[in-house]
Amino acid sequence: MRWCNLQGKRVLHPPAWIGVVGGGQLGRMLAMEAKRMGYSVVVLDPTENSPAGQVADFQIVAPFSDKTALRKLAEQSDVITYEFEHIDAEALHELEIENHTVIPSSKTLKIIKDKYLQKMTLYNANLPVPPFCKIESKEDLVKRIGEFGLPVVLKARQGGYDGKGNFVIKSESDVDLAYEKLAGKDLMLEKYIHFVKELSILVARNFEGEVKFYPVVENIHEENILRITKVPAQIDSSIKSKVEQIARKVVEVLNDCGIFCIELFLDSNGQVFINEIAPRPHNSGHYTIEACVTSQFEQLVRILTGMPLGSTQLISPCVMVNILGNDEVFGKYTVEGLEKILSMEKVYLHLYGKSTTSRLRKLGHITVLDENVEKAERKALETLSHLKIKPL
Amino acid sequence: MRWCNLQGKRVLHPPAWIGVVGGGQLGRMLAMEAKRMGYSVVVLDPTENSPAGQVADFQIVAPFSDKTALRKLAEQSDVITYEFEHIDAEALHELEIENHTVIPSSKTLKIIKDKYLQKMTLYNANLPVPPFCKIESKEDLVKRIGEFGLPVVLKARQGGYDGKGNFVIKSESDVDLAYEKLAGKDLMLEKYIHFVKELSILVARNFEGEVKFYPVVENIHEENILRITKVPAQIDSSIKSKVEQIARKVVEVLNDCGIFCIELFLDSNGQVFINEIAPRPHNSGHYTIEACVTSQFEQLVRILTGMPLGSTQLISPCVMVNILGNDEVFGKYTVEGLEKILSMEKVYLHLYGKSTTSRLRKLGHITVLDENVEKAERKALETLSHLKIKPL
Repeated sequence: MRWCNLQGKRVLHPPAWIGVVGGGQLGRMLAMEAKRMGYSVVVLDPTENSPAGQVADFQIVAPFSDKTALRKLAEQSDVITYEFEHIDAEALHELEIENHTVIPSSKTLKIIKDKYLQKMTLYNANLPVPPFCKIESKEDLVKRIGEFGLPVVLKARQGGYDGKGNFVIKSESDVDLAYEKLAGKDLMLEKYIHFVKELSILVARNFEGEVKFYPVVENIHEENILRITKVPAQIDSSIKSKVEQIARKVVEVLNDCGIFCIELFLDSNGQVFINEIAPRPHNSGHYTIEACVTSQFEQLVRILTGMPLGSTQLISPCVMVNILGNDEVFGKYTVEGLEKILSMEKVYLHLYGKSTTSRLRKLGHITVLDENVEKAERKALETLSHLKIKPL
Repeated sequence: MRWCNLQGKRVLHPPAWIGVVGGGQLGRMLAMEAKRMGYSVVVLDPTENSPAGQVADFQIVAPFSDKTALRKLAEQSDVITYEFEHIDAEALHELEIENHTVIPSSKTLKIIKDKYLQKMTLYNANLPVPPFCKIESKEDLVKRIGEFGLPVVLKARQGGYDGKGNFVIKSESDVDLAYEKLAGKDLMLEKYIHFVKELSILVARNFEGEVKFYPVVENIHEENILRITKVPAQIDSSIKSKVEQIARKVVEVLNDCGIFCIELFLDSNGQVFINEIAPRPHNSGHYTIEACVTSQFEQLVRILTGMPLGSTQLISPCVMVNILGNDEVFGKYTVEGLEKILSMEKVYLHLYGKSTTSRLRKLGHITVLDENVEKAERKALETLSHLKIKPL
């Protein structure tokens, strides 16, 4: 362990090791920033040559459920973090007991990875969430629909992401299919919020309890996958400060350090509801790489190593669009049309090095900086029109 | 080979392979940008786990003189570049004959790596260089000193860098030592220019012959090692356009594509002289990572893959300082004081992941953005005062 005590503060100096559970694009961009700053990075992921593994010092190739592999990661690392939530919080807790540093803590992970426990924690802290409840049986579901009114969202409490594990019930005829789809899982129900905007905010909190917000951004999802992030969100300053107040309270309630993304719904009455919290860098924060003084990934490196937070100041309005796999190409692929995209000014291309594509798989993203969000959005959509995913 | 023909233009789409001869910090930062854009990177370097090898897809560990290793690199790569000049231009030329793409070409490398041939090429193109000549013997040296007047610089024609292979002769009593130090090498002599500023400029040129300049910057060397780069250089606009004209002519004369750094001396009469040219990204261009729309490394990736050049616009005045090994610590090391450095705003830390330090070894750099060069410089020097290299 390379932790140093500096007048009561614990810091990690390069070349200390950062261990990352998960080798996807979030781990990749985190590893790139950590390497830039001179830290060493080890990644745990079941897929050889994972996006993060490609740029890390080395990768442990093993399933996330492999406790021996997790222990190996811990032994190599001075601090451990994770880039997604669907890992065993108990196993991380065992590492904490053995004095390994896990950020955010297993306690936070345990709360967040169970959507019901997450909502309950927020609700108990008087944070605004949509009406929700546990669902134990189909009868229960029907009864609660009676109370909440349609539409509602039936959710698996654990393991869902990018819309997987969610089912929007719009009419009573959807109930059977929804229940069948999610059969065997622990379930919860939420009232569907008729939002006018989907917002999110990144919050950073370090060991010292220092808290910094990134700008409130506006997200557009399709088929439950993030497509566009517009920065900053075009909202009243009263909404902005409401969102920041919520964000501050969320990290106070969790009482932990890390990067947190809070996704919210804004309805037509100007009310905001927390949709969900991610205890890690987030797709809607990728824009920070080029558009903020400190990227969400550098910020997490700072937090993991006990350093002061960096400025979250926005340098320029921008729009981020995701590059997703399509219906036509599966397996190995190449990306064409870059010569058109790269001829446009202030366009930043990120491809994640995933060896295969599939429908809606996140292959990369493009961030476009411009003098206002409208211009940036027009340009960002144009870049997508040029981009072609072709079989290799 | 993954080269595609697009209306007569040759482009490489991700995940095409970029091969880099040399695994130092330039290769590392190049690899990081290439990976970000979805390209694959292989590095050739004799030192296992080299700075570039750490972030590349893989490294071929072999001496640069190993032709089999070089051929292996070529076979893996769709395009080959190099991050330093002291490699065998003939071996690269053999690869070109076999239809491998080498950028910049072996012809350019051959000219540039021989300082006399380089100066002669520039001189023949009427570009401003200090008076220079070949030196065949010590008698020759004494005779030429008589013509040029003191001080002069005796240089090994090949293989020198960071002042190694150079000897400034200030008085006649230095002649014996200088000649002894460089004994056995092909030599040249140059009149020493009493400069008021050392300037440099990066120029990018792609397949299409499109040329873009980065800002003219001002460099401060000590013991022949770059210490500080100030951006933009505080010079008259007439000097700036003179430097740009020179830069344009240099890439026209070389008639090649790549990133070129032209280092110049400015004397008290407002005259500029080319000191030397590097056919690759350059230490004095590291500031472009944070302070320009397109970094020198992304620019090179664009050039290597046949893409249009990116904007070279300066976003903010800035100062870069190198982090160098000191007299006291040799071997394995850690870098302390980061908690103070990272508490300062718009300070970007780069450490190269070199496992050992030695005197004046380039271990990393720090770029500071601020509203003007003076403020950025003050802050940059402050960061260095906090930074401590400690044995590990």
